[in-house]
Amino acid sequence: MSLLTFDNPVFGYYAVAAALMIIKMMSQGWITVFRMIKVNGGYRYQEDARRSPANPRPSPEQLLPNEYVERSRRMHGNDVENIPLFLVAGLLYVCTAPSNVTAFCIFFIYILSRFAHFYVVLTARPHEVRASFWTVGSVAIYFMAGTVLWTALRP
Amino acid sequence: MSLLTFDNPVFGYYAVAAALMIIKMMSQGWITVFRMIKVNGGYRYQEDARRSPANPRPSPEQLLPNEYVERSRRMHGNDVENIPLFLVAGLLYVCTAPSNVTAFCIFFIYILSRFAHFYVVLTARPHEVRASFWTVGSVAIYFMAGTVLWTALRP
Amino acid sequence: MSLLTFDNPVFGYYAVAAALMIIKMMSQGWITVFRMIKVNGGYRYQEDARRSPANPRPSPEQLLPNEYVERSRRMHGNDVENIPLFLVAGLLYVCTAPSNVTAFCIFFIYILSRFAHFYVVLTARPHEVRASFWTVGSVAIYFMAGTVLWTALRP
Repeated sequence: MSLLTFDNPVFGYYAVAAALMIIKMMSQGWITVFRMIKVNGGYRYQEDARRSPANPRPSPEQLLPNEYVERSRRMHGNDVENIPLFLVAGLLYVCTAPSNVTAFCIFFIYILSRFAHFYVVLTARPHEVRASFWTVGSVAIYFMAGTVLWTALRP
Repeated sequence: MSLLTFDNPVFGYYAVAAALMIIKMMSQGWITVFRMIKVNGGYRYQEDARRSPANPRPSPEQLLPNEYVERSRRMHGNDVENIPLFLVAGLLYVCTAPSNVTAFCIFFIYILSRFAHFYVVLTARPHEVRASFWTVGSVAIYFMAGTVLWTALRP
Repeated sequence: MSLLTFDNPVFGYYAVAAALMIIKMMSQGWITVFRMIKVNGGYRYQEDARRSPANPRPSPEQLLPNEYVERSRRMHGNDVENIPLFLVAGLLYVCTAPSNVTAFCIFFIYILSRFAHFYVVLTARPHEVRASFWTVGSVAIYFMAGTVLWTALRP
């Protein structure tokens, strides 16, 4: 019997977690857009420093890296390295038929760790805090991948 | 009953859309390869500027960034930020049992927006055009993620 | 009937392959961390070059790019471009009900090509060797995506 239906509460928890992470990662692109508008620069395409309705006074300096914009790009890069792994590891973890409580906790911890990581990078908190939250998310993914391996390989 | 089978027409639409996006993103890597061959440079690994069968006349300049190659890398980076989200959001959206017509339209719009985005960046069209197509794809992903949330959380 | 359950041997093979790839890609982040600790630099966030328990003697040079660290970041970037595609293409390929032997071989070849690619980049082997292993993984993904298209679109 398939566990990948909304009749399965664990799939429901996963679906909520996955949708929130998808919305979070998609929104990081918009944060980069808003930051580029705010500083009127940090562009990477040469055509963006040409005159256009959205850029009536172009200048070559608009193509220089801007730390405020680059920070959002690095956050996006961190999402790209982590969130797709959660999305698939979580789906396969649902197929291992975990208990409702364990599954809820692991998804909840993952989401919390990512939103905390987001806040900590956004506000440039010390490296140790950022690393801690990243580690929590990382351990959650190892746990889910390990459970999948165990379920597939047990005799 | 699982909706993730080819007996479900909506799953079939999704599978076609997903396979096309996978082929598109994989091919961006090949476009970068072809561009590096064409300009004989734009490499990023030091070992690529050593003498080898594929590089009989190496030079240190081959390691300098080359805009023609970098454009393809940025396009790949944009795929990396968007396509994995579509692949998972689309799969979960299929599980919400949408109507055939709505699902077909949303997948079709997404694919169209990505191929249009590809063409527009490839040909360096004005920023406004690129941003419009990216926005369409982004809204499609928000819509699917929102539908998943709604289905999971409705009373 | 859903094929996405551990009762289906092909799903089991896929789950093992997917979990290994998830663990591999997550671990690349840790390799970058260990390399940053080893060279005491290669950081990208300005807050990482401030005094803290983990960085008692900060210096602005810690923010300069370090090739030893950047190599691991590029390897992570290559994972990001390839592994999420495998994770989803593989899952959809399971839904096409391939024979056990074909599915086992394709997953095995993919995993082998990625671990070989990892080793070859880590040890800076000639470009031709790296390109060959990347090509094998790429062809495996095209094959799975093609099979999905064929299954969805056949009359």
